[in-house]
Amino acid sequence: MTLVTPSATSALPFKVADLSLAEAGRHQLRLAENEMPGLMALRAEYGESKPLAGARIAGSLHMTVQTAVLIETLVALGAEVRWASCNIFSTQDEAAAAVVVGPDGTVDEPAGVPVFAWKGETLEEYWWCTDRIFDWSAEAEAAGADWVGPNMILDDGGDATLLVHRGREFEAAGSVPAAADDASAEYRVVLDTLRRSLAASPDRWTRIATELRGVTEETTTGVHRLYELHADGELLFPAINVNDSVTKSKFDNKYGIRHSLPDGLNRATDVLMGGKVAFVAGYGDVGKGAAEALRGQGARVIVSEIDPINALQAAMDGYRVARLESVADQVDILVTGTGNKDVVRLEHLLALKHLAVVANVGHFDNEIDMASLESLEGAERVEIKPQVHEWRLPTGRSILVLSEGRLMNLGNATGHPSFVMSNSFANQVLAQIELWTRPDAYPIGVYVLPKHLDEKVARLHLDALGVELTVLTPEQAAYIGVPVEGPYKVDHYRY
Amino acid sequence: MTLVTPSATSALPFKVADLSLAEAGRHQLRLAENEMPGLMALRAEYGESKPLAGARIAGSLHMTVQTAVLIETLVALGAEVRWASCNIFSTQDEAAAAVVVGPDGTVDEPAGVPVFAWKGETLEEYWWCTDRIFDWSAEAEAAGADWVGPNMILDDGGDATLLVHRGREFEAAGSVPAAADDASAEYRVVLDTLRRSLAASPDRWTRIATELRGVTEETTTGVHRLYELHADGELLFPAINVNDSVTKSKFDNKYGIRHSLPDGLNRATDVLMGGKVAFVAGYGDVGKGAAEALRGQGARVIVSEIDPINALQAAMDGYRVARLESVADQVDILVTGTGNKDVVRLEHLLALKHLAVVANVGHFDNEIDMASLESLEGAERVEIKPQVHEWRLPTGRSILVLSEGRLMNLGNATGHPSFVMSNSFANQVLAQIELWTRPDAYPIGVYVLPKHLDEKVARLHLDALGVELTVLTPEQAAYIGVPVEGPYKVDHYRY
Amino acid sequence: MTLVTPSATSALPFKVADLSLAEAGRHQLRLAENEMPGLMALRAEYGESKPLAGARIAGSLHMTVQTAVLIETLVALGAEVRWASCNIFSTQDEAAAAVVVGPDGTVDEPAGVPVFAWKGETLEEYWWCTDRIFDWSAEAEAAGADWVGPNMILDDGGDATLLVHRGREFEAAGSVPAAADDASAEYRVVLDTLRRSLAASPDRWTRIATELRGVTEETTTGVHRLYELHADGELLFPAINVNDSVTKSKFDNKYGIRHSLPDGLNRATDVLMGGKVAFVAGYGDVGKGAAEALRGQGARVIVSEIDPINALQAAMDGYRVARLESVADQVDILVTGTGNKDVVRLEHLLALKHLAVVANVGHFDNEIDMASLESLEGAERVEIKPQVHEWRLPTGRSILVLSEGRLMNLGNATGHPSFVMSNSFANQVLAQIELWTRPDAYPIGVYVLPKHLDEKVARLHLDALGVELTVLTPEQAAYIGVPVEGPYKVDHYRY
Amino acid sequence: MTLVTPSATSALPFKVADLSLAEAGRHQLRLAENEMPGLMALRAEYGESKPLAGARIAGSLHMTVQTAVLIETLVALGAEVRWASCNIFSTQDEAAAAVVVGPDGTVDEPAGVPVFAWKGETLEEYWWCTDRIFDWSAEAEAAGADWVGPNMILDDGGDATLLVHRGREFEAAGSVPAAADDASAEYRVVLDTLRRSLAASPDRWTRIATELRGVTEETTTGVHRLYELHADGELLFPAINVNDSVTKSKFDNKYGIRHSLPDGLNRATDVLMGGKVAFVAGYGDVGKGAAEALRGQGARVIVSEIDPINALQAAMDGYRVARLESVADQVDILVTGTGNKDVVRLEHLLALKHLAVVANVGHFDNEIDMASLESLEGAERVEIKPQVHEWRLPTGRSILVLSEGRLMNLGNATGHPSFVMSNSFANQVLAQIELWTRPDAYPIGVYVLPKHLDEKVARLHLDALGVELTVLTPEQAAYIGVPVEGPYKVDHYRY
Repeated sequence: MTLVTPSATSALPFKVADLSLAEAGRHQLRLAENEMPGLMALRAEYGESKPLAGARIAGSLHMTVQTAVLIETLVALGAEVRWASCNIFSTQDEAAAAVVVGPDGTVDEPAGVPVFAWKGETLEEYWWCTDRIFDWSAEAEAAGADWVGPNMILDDGGDATLLVHRGREFEAAGSVPAAADDASAEYRVVLDTLRRSLAASPDRWTRIATELRGVTEETTTGVHRLYELHADGELLFPAINVNDSVTKSKFDNKYGIRHSLPDGLNRATDVLMGGKVAFVAGYGDVGKGAAEALRGQGARVIVSEIDPINALQAAMDGYRVARLESVADQVDILVTGTGNKDVVRLEHLLALKHLAVVANVGHFDNEIDMASLESLEGAERVEIKPQVHEWRLPTGRSILVLSEGRLMNLGNATGHPSFVMSNSFANQVLAQIELWTRPDAYPIGVYVLPKHLDEKVARLHLDALGVELTVLTPEQAAYIGVPVEGPYKVDHYRY
Repeated sequence: MTLVTPSATSALPFKVADLSLAEAGRHQLRLAENEMPGLMALRAEYGESKPLAGARIAGSLHMTVQTAVLIETLVALGAEVRWASCNIFSTQDEAAAAVVVGPDGTVDEPAGVPVFAWKGETLEEYWWCTDRIFDWSAEAEAAGADWVGPNMILDDGGDATLLVHRGREFEAAGSVPAAADDASAEYRVVLDTLRRSLAASPDRWTRIATELRGVTEETTTGVHRLYELHADGELLFPAINVNDSVTKSKFDNKYGIRHSLPDGLNRATDVLMGGKVAFVAGYGDVGKGAAEALRGQGARVIVSEIDPINALQAAMDGYRVARLESVADQVDILVTGTGNKDVVRLEHLLALKHLAVVANVGHFDNEIDMASLESLEGAERVEIKPQVHEWRLPTGRSILVLSEGRLMNLGNATGHPSFVMSNSFANQVLAQIELWTRPDAYPIGVYVLPKHLDEKVARLHLDALGVELTVLTPEQAAYIGVPVEGPYKVDHYRY
Repeated sequence: MTLVTPSATSALPFKVADLSLAEAGRHQLRLAENEMPGLMALRAEYGESKPLAGARIAGSLHMTVQTAVLIETLVALGAEVRWASCNIFSTQDEAAAAVVVGPDGTVDEPAGVPVFAWKGETLEEYWWCTDRIFDWSAEAEAAGADWVGPNMILDDGGDATLLVHRGREFEAAGSVPAAADDASAEYRVVLDTLRRSLAASPDRWTRIATELRGVTEETTTGVHRLYELHADGELLFPAINVNDSVTKSKFDNKYGIRHSLPDGLNRATDVLMGGKVAFVAGYGDVGKGAAEALRGQGARVIVSEIDPINALQAAMDGYRVARLESVADQVDILVTGTGNKDVVRLEHLLALKHLAVVANVGHFDNEIDMASLESLEGAERVEIKPQVHEWRLPTGRSILVLSEGRLMNLGNATGHPSFVMSNSFANQVLAQIELWTRPDAYPIGVYVLPKHLDEKVARLHLDALGVELTVLTPEQAAYIGVPVEGPYKVDHYRY
Repeated sequence: MTLVTPSATSALPFKVADLSLAEAGRHQLRLAENEMPGLMALRAEYGESKPLAGARIAGSLHMTVQTAVLIETLVALGAEVRWASCNIFSTQDEAAAAVVVGPDGTVDEPAGVPVFAWKGETLEEYWWCTDRIFDWSAEAEAAGADWVGPNMILDDGGDATLLVHRGREFEAAGSVPAAADDASAEYRVVLDTLRRSLAASPDRWTRIATELRGVTEETTTGVHRLYELHADGELLFPAINVNDSVTKSKFDNKYGIRHSLPDGLNRATDVLMGGKVAFVAGYGDVGKGAAEALRGQGARVIVSEIDPINALQAAMDGYRVARLESVADQVDILVTGTGNKDVVRLEHLLALKHLAVVANVGHFDNEIDMASLESLEGAERVEIKPQVHEWRLPTGRSILVLSEGRLMNLGNATGHPSFVMSNSFANQVLAQIELWTRPDAYPIGVYVLPKHLDEKVARLHLDALGVELTVLTPEQAAYIGVPVEGPYKVDHYRY
């Protein structure tokens, strides 16, 4: 692939696949803006006052059309932004091009935001891109300033945050250690990346860490890392856990999957869901959305759970609850959405009906024991089309594995729809504003957004759906002991 | 009504409507036991070890068939028990009779539990009954002991707890104050009750308060009072908030109302729900259950909400969200389940369709502004049958008000079904065991049950529904950082 | 029971339970009128022109509140009416009283319609009542006319029609034959009734048969008898099959059962449906409504079918389809709605879960093999309450049989709700008008209502539900080849 | 496009896009076979006896993967087959290639079935292809026979049937008439095609008409033409109306659209359906499936109807029923499935919400008044991607029109899924067997398949869904008056 980098005549640093895709990307941004009322409302509310003026945001998050609307929202609120994707495959190249060109720029004179992302990066390229969002020398030079990096991180999965923490740790130690024998291929790349950085500058990450006011983090995994860092006393700056906003976790997971699971199944296989037996592993928010979508298409859904409370919920919602091994031989469509590993094991795969579809909407590809499948004697893998593989098993039966066992809502569909992401990203924007404008309110630690902001995110999405909200009278508010304008619930309320 | 009290030949103190109902009550207890697998499992698990041996429990909770199974479970676990109802109308007289007679007693020689409850108590009688559950002189005498009252309270709504706190307060002050001018009729009765008590014994409540090891409380209202008492530094003993267990709040409210709302509508009116416009005020757990039930019967459901997050949930679940005043003239069935006051106001009632049904499943009768309706010039009230009244309005239209604006799932139906109550009551039993057997773990304060007990309650109900729970491998448990046997979720997990 | 018959001062012949119930009945009629917009619209449309003037209708149909609204609609359209119930248990005595008293009469001077019906008739009384609706001597005398009976029948189940056909047959033969050895108890009563009639008048039924212009029949069973009579060349007058109007069969069966099945389960047992395994035998319209209702309450529904098309529909609608014997040991709630016999057999009953509920919404009590249960050695029947019996089985388990195996939507609930009956009864009224006003259009034979009248019935119910109908333009109507005002579908259209 | 025709060394006549796609096509056929149990069961049942031996079938039906399985089923049953598509765009080129190559042939030596079809034919090419399926000279020569054409037609839309009827008519008249002034472009092509045929042979169609034993027709439109031909006395051979089999009309329309509507919406726009207002014009089987799918995704569905019966069904199923003009300004997703014209008019399009999606799943593109939109002053059409166009309206709002107003389930999705088509095509195969093997049973006329064959089609699909059918005992069968093995229902039963 010939990647595009700035021409001599352009001041804008970036690296994307093809700037000429910018117009196609802009079309999609325009449509997405209509489906992201939360972000557009924030532009309307804060476009004038620009609360993010002065913020230099390093963003690491799937470089999609929806993220493009997020980026341009941050810019509209006054921030300077640099961006990398948080996954080697997830960039939509037309979105990246549109963001670089910007609404007012041209392919020849891009006037948007520096993006370093393209679909199909190598691991080395991926970490190079991540490194790039921390190099603000061009911006510093233009501003005549002496800082070296961003003062805010917007993270998804924690890779940007990881790089700062490890960088500073190794700088303090004076060198990057050799990789342990059992280090993953990816971690070796991280070490190499930092080794090059230390060679060029022995205190770059130390300075960046000092300049950083905080991070807002999107995912369960990233949040988990932050809580661990903080528990170990190693967290370098405050963090806001955006993942656990109600308008993120209960919407993104449940309603996002309800949309994208059947979409992915259809695009991958066109198989009728009606009348089929669909098995959903896990009845958390993801599983709830998956089960609802499948039932809505006339499938007969069986659920598995390890948590008796969720299991009882599934039963009360009318689903059969069983172990996968008890029913695998009846299953036409197997969906796993647990966030755990080895949920679907070889014994299960071997027991499924002929040409059963296997779909992961949980997390890593180890939810399904793909490794054992790949090393199974006598198994044969036939590509039906990209991201759809028939595995012919020694039993004489076949199964259809989607996205090689990775997230099929991303690999076979197009991920969460814009409206859902508008909720998640409005949380991100509000979290950035909080950390940036009220630094004293957030000493080092990990915080969830205050409930009134969570409610605000919801509020911003009501008009688009024609929702008419009822307003408390002062007497009613007093009666239940809440302010008229909210927040309305105790913290442990479960929605 | 001729109430029954012990004969000269019986040692058992009690006051109920009619002991001859005991056999009919026992039939119903037997059926209910089959629907209350949680309580029966606790009997099986703890019937031998009797962890509640030594506990003297004063119970104040609707004296129904389900409560009868709870009472006999407490007894099976070793406790001594005295019982009153927590509502003047909610006693099922055959259940009360069965509990007094006991499984091994006879009408002539009752051998069960002292119950002081009958359907249709006056307020004076109600508080007399509540007072009775604190008078353990008979038991003390039999035991040759010097205590005067119970050492545990099991409460629903907080009346038993209130009596102790006020009694001790007035004893400390030396007298019961006169009622304030705006005191409610009921509070005047409370004061009279305590006045009599102080006259008989100036330190009775003070001693009882000392003897009490703690209280377990069932409802939102009661829990609210406890948190206020504790915040004001006045709480006299530790309390466990059973209401906020997941297996209570998310099951009782949602699945209980899903069951009892259509049941009450049918028994009251036989009106077809299919095709009708049903309005549900509030989309908390009660509203979610109500909306699901009505949709399941083919009604077209419109929801109102004050909280934008719940409003967005309702929209994403496919309901129209509107203010009542915007749509009242289309509404055939009006359901309110908010827990707030003045939710349905006179202007709404006047705008409803002719013979629209008005049903409260929220809390007090002030959810509907019944007071304004009752004082409305030109309105006429016609009793169609008990708990069902046609109000002829000056507009020329009529409305049907159920249960005089009070909880129609109790007034027109039979409340939550046994299976749901088995969850709530298993929480109560486990909370009693916690407080009684681990007093050191609970200094004065208000606690929710630890998550592992919440999960245990769910676990006890799975077999009855044929649920097959999946078990984590040790590797999987380690991978997600939880014990194999649970608890499985972080505290802020929302289910 | 002291039945009420006319006083010396009243001209109105009747026999009902208690005229003092009339006021309570009138309340319910008033509420039902609001739920029966089809009948009320017919009163508005035809109240002036009185197309049924001259019609003398003998009605044999459950004497309920809804039927009362039907009767008064027939009267409003000009007919004279006499009524009996078509089931010994189905009369609502307050409805019967209200109809006799009439809207303008008093208990002392009833001015309504002659009704011969009360709850709990013996078989002898039942057939006496049916005989009474054919004796119009009082009316003839008042009119100075020489006819002896009605000129129209409105039938439900065909008993009125049967009596005429058998009566005329025996009159032609000169005598009523002796009962065959295997004749049912009921048929012996029929023969006795006719024997008395022939003794009093040898040609009464022959004259009545001549006077009759036709019959409109409500049920599958009655319609089946009519087709058989006609196939055998024995039908004496034209018949309209109201049962197979779309607005009857697809509404009454599906939406009526959807309403009344859960209602009956609740009133009988209060058992939670959520999470339970419910088995529905038959996936015709009744089964479809039953399954939808149970799923709407969170039950896990399993369906059985003999017809592969209906079975495939059930599968495509997301239900498991299995034989009862394959799953009986998992079933908590067993519903049968097939119209066949021996659907639930002893082997099934013995295999059900402990205290499983057994409910018939199909037809006769032989859907469940009650006879075998009743003669089962070691089985014991315990009445929990009327219409709810625990059968203790030799297996050590019990089951709960509702309504002794008969239709539980009638026995444990209150039958179809008014709105559904308004559809069925509007078909009846239109069929009566057709037969009465267009006799030449209907030579002897069995007819379904023309589609435009079926559509009319639907049309009359739209306003009450706020339905806004779209109107074809003349161009659109021409394009699809239908009149603007309908009918819109080919005869074999399946809806 | 370079089309592929037989090489000199191949005896097989055909014309398709690219034979090298055959392997990819074969993969898809293999997967489809697993989803088409009805066809595969017919192969198993009749593969030995070959009831279609001697049949020469001219097929005109979308040349898709599913049709390929149909074609190879006909061959497996002994037929010779020639195929054209019935739509210029609907051919899947890889399926066409696979059928030509055949399971045992190679790209160099194709050994399958003569197919004349490719994606994107011109109208001239289309009718040339249709003409080709009637030219069996190669086969006749190989067989040493004197026939000229097929003896059976398998039709979809009636184009093959039309060609024969018009051809014979013009041959009888001696010439093809000039096109009328208002003749459509397509009809002019038909006339040209026949003009060339008459020039080459003046009695070809007359001979073909004589040789033809009958036609089986798939669609409403084609069936409508057949009934008209027969009513006009012009039908030349018997026809079986496959469209009105229950397993066709109630499955294909309802369950097919339930699957493909959301699929098409997703592929076209990725717009979230949850929470949106979706309007469905028409509540026939298509509308029922559409509404269920949209509700299953959390949309708020509003339905329109012209038929009061269907309107009442929609209301009883819980949908709001309104005219489009009453609610257009609230609509996010507009779906039309009526089969009528001008259902969505310019006034509606102008009133929709900004960027509302407009989707036709009814029939022709005139359901939406695209002509008026296209000629609207000030409207601008922007292609977002193929089959997805933004129309910028003079109101300042835009709408998204899918598939240029044509069937979006074909244009934006992949049509009905294989399992649904297996039902439709099994009806086709059984209809071919009926007509071919029992010619005496079908004099000239239009027939629906006998009910026992309709039931057979359903029966063939049960195993794949794990359905366990209940079997009548002889006593039960006698009781309800049906054979044990079916058919089970009266003809007017509505399912």
